[in-house]
Amino acid sequence: MNNSLITSDPSLKRDFIAFLSECIYERRVSQIQRVLESRTRYITVVLEDIYQSQNASAVLRTCDCLGLQDIHIIEDKHCFNVNPQVVLGSNKWLTIKKYKNDSNNSIKAMESLRNEGYRIVATSPHTKEVSLEHFDLHKGKVALFFGTELSGLSKSVLSNADEFISIPMYGFTESFNISVSAAIVLYSLIKKLRDSDILYQLSTDEKENLLLLWLKATTKKWEMMEKRFLLEKNIESLKKY
Amino acid sequence: MNNSLITSDPSLKRDFIAFLSECIYERRVSQIQRVLESRTRYITVVLEDIYQSQNASAVLRTCDCLGLQDIHIIEDKHCFNVNPQVVLGSNKWLTIKKYKNDSNNSIKAMESLRNEGYRIVATSPHTKEVSLEHFDLHKGKVALFFGTELSGLSKSVLSNADEFISIPMYGFTESFNISVSAAIVLYSLIKKLRDSDILYQLSTDEKENLLLLWLKATTKKWEMMEKRFLLEKNIESLKKY
Repeated sequence: MNNSLITSDPSLKRDFIAFLSECIYERRVSQIQRVLESRTRYITVVLEDIYQSQNASAVLRTCDCLGLQDIHIIEDKHCFNVNPQVVLGSNKWLTIKKYKNDSNNSIKAMESLRNEGYRIVATSPHTKEVSLEHFDLHKGKVALFFGTELSGLSKSVLSNADEFISIPMYGFTESFNISVSAAIVLYSLIKKLRDSDILYQLSTDEKENLLLLWLKATTKKWEMMEKRFLLEKNIESLKKY
Repeated sequence: MNNSLITSDPSLKRDFIAFLSECIYERRVSQIQRVLESRTRYITVVLEDIYQSQNASAVLRTCDCLGLQDIHIIEDKHCFNVNPQVVLGSNKWLTIKKYKNDSNNSIKAMESLRNEGYRIVATSPHTKEVSLEHFDLHKGKVALFFGTELSGLSKSVLSNADEFISIPMYGFTESFNISVSAAIVLYSLIKKLRDSDILYQLSTDEKENLLLLWLKATTKKWEMMEKRFLLEKNIESLKKY
């Protein structure tokens, strides 16, 4: 209840952000601000039925390192698990959305992302439609689908994707490991995005919401801090605290 | 003995290559030739004490996919193992050199690579000397050192490297997974190399030696084929066959 009260009142939210920021080391607040300025939802990642926790964790870590905020996880046959030694806490800073328990989770994910304005882009080493180097980011926001370890993307994704992207290959082996494939595609596109004139940063509102979440994640006893903040504000409706 | 006789006689070697090529599907020979033309030793990879077989395997597969021929493995505390499900046979096409059983295997590897004309380049997320995007390939051949999973490169490498390279980071997590780090660095530099005027391809002699090795790796009973070839050649010194 506190939470919805604070987040629904922009002025109260800003005050609470200032209040929490004062309780955290300055260096940490600067880091959070710096990461926030680089964060993007212009490119997002969709992992379809990844089952090796090491791969899943490496992709999450890559997303945080490169400044992507949202990750979409489709769970069909396999559960998505992370390996703490590989993920190194990076999942704490990401927005993770799961698709499961639907008759076709991949179709559901594609529909949902299309409604948010994303182009559905399948990464597949067998489809040579557009090489990574020539992929046009100006055409709109991009949801990059990566498939399961052995068999790749499902037929649902391959037959419903808007576009296909492939990494140039020069060897005998016909595909990269999934975490490697994601790293190469994401690094190349993020570099191109940051060098472009595209407005890829989050909106002021998105930044504030994320900042609040991250400050809470950084503060050990944020619930207690929230109570104290609301008491200080002397809000009538919260006298119960 | 056959092998050294064939490889030491350029004309005999070429004839044997032609002989073996005729025994293999044309499509396979074309693939081998195509991969050979893209292969390079201008950039090489050195893995220092990697202990997770999944990481080691993913790096080998990345090297084959991107067209690197040589991989150097330093084994100190840990043994280097591959995971067949991840490596997918890519190690069969690579030249792997191991450094172990020396008092300082890393120093040994650096000495050996310097003697072959390589610049020793340490990849380290904590050293911001040269960003990946500004790394100059024209200054000479590059041996890229990647460190062990948790602690990174050893002091031996960090204090003896000629240059340092780092990947731009925008998140909270301070390092990429080793296989991800290798993928990003290798993909970026290989792309830059292929777009440059640097002569990165193998020499005619290197190509022939590798072609012979790959044809043998492709031929199930190459020893038998070699005997038949030598018999056909009717070489006096090999009448014992």
